[in-house]
Amino acid sequence: MVRWQPGTSERLQAAALDLFASNGYEQTTAAEIAQSVGLTERTFFRHFSDKREVLFHGQELLVEAFLAGVAAAPDDATPMELVGAALESAAPFFPAERRDHSRLRQTVIDQNPALQERERHKMSVLATTLRDALRARGSAEPAATLAAESAATVFGVSFTQWIAPGEERSIVEIERAVLAELRDLTAANPTAHRAAKA
Amino acid sequence: MVRWQPGTSERLQAAALDLFASNGYEQTTAAEIAQSVGLTERTFFRHFSDKREVLFHGQELLVEAFLAGVAAAPDDATPMELVGAALESAAPFFPAERRDHSRLRQTVIDQNPALQERERHKMSVLATTLRDALRARGSAEPAATLAAESAATVFGVSFTQWIAPGEERSIVEIERAVLAELRDLTAANPTAHRAAKA
Repeated sequence: MVRWQPGTSERLQAAALDLFASNGYEQTTAAEIAQSVGLTERTFFRHFSDKREVLFHGQELLVEAFLAGVAAAPDDATPMELVGAALESAAPFFPAERRDHSRLRQTVIDQNPALQERERHKMSVLATTLRDALRARGSAEPAATLAAESAATVFGVSFTQWIAPGEERSIVEIERAVLAELRDLTAANPTAHRAAKA
Repeated sequence: MVRWQPGTSERLQAAALDLFASNGYEQTTAAEIAQSVGLTERTFFRHFSDKREVLFHGQELLVEAFLAGVAAAPDDATPMELVGAALESAAPFFPAERRDHSRLRQTVIDQNPALQERERHKMSVLATTLRDALRARGSAEPAATLAAESAATVFGVSFTQWIAPGEERSIVEIERAVLAELRDLTAANPTAHRAAKA
């Protein structure tokens, strides 16, 4: 009988990240990850389907947090207010004590094209899931897609800034500033303005 | 000695698309594509590295067209004006007579996850290449990334609309309307506004 061990997934994740960062992602096996924390390869595969999943585990929860923010927003929220609510709702996934872990994880991903592809796919799923939630809340097209894709962009830009060396603001502070920058940026577009009025 | 035949790539592309659409992408081989227009498999592989490339051939030219638009824009152009110039510069790739071809191509891509991944990768390359061009023109961060990602989003949304059944507007007309919608959408975001002023 297998006893459930609290924190086994977390221990495997931390060990995997250390090995990926020091020895390289390709060069690290599931067996090595397990052995480095005194566990067997079999135990590893009870927690993760493959070594790639160690890096992406739990991300459905992140998408759910975005959706919970949309669901909890006031009835009269604009699409971009829904996006703001989604971003704020997901912020607890990025506490200050997680920043070093996130930095190391990103370093590993940035060095491997297959992991980058997985990351792009994840962001694409986030954007389409959010788009569907905005549609369900009554946003028309193209507003729903534009707002959802902008949410993914703002999240991506903010996350990159959040893990930048020396950055100390919370992810929500950064996201608010980036949302404001996006608004100012698109406002300063007389070409679109003229075209829209023409 | 191999005589250069004008239009061979185009013939192979049209034949491939027909076979992908009628028999399925996975079920179609390079040899079948070549045979359907009276050519050999060897000839096929002189033009394309694999059957996937038939669908993505020539897309570096699209990226170059985006960059040419940025390069030709006035010195005082805002980041979103540079984006508008990039989109307009790429418009000749989407003439009215290409719409049916683009529709069929999208149907094939939408049915195959590996092709969708390739499409995401292509859009990601477009966005980062454009971001680098905006930086080189003096745009700071996060403006350069936000504007470049917005360009990719506006292009994607506009292209989807351009191939929608019954759509008759040119891609530039659609892009201008989508850019205006993005501006109005982000302007209607009092949350970000309050945060920015706080």
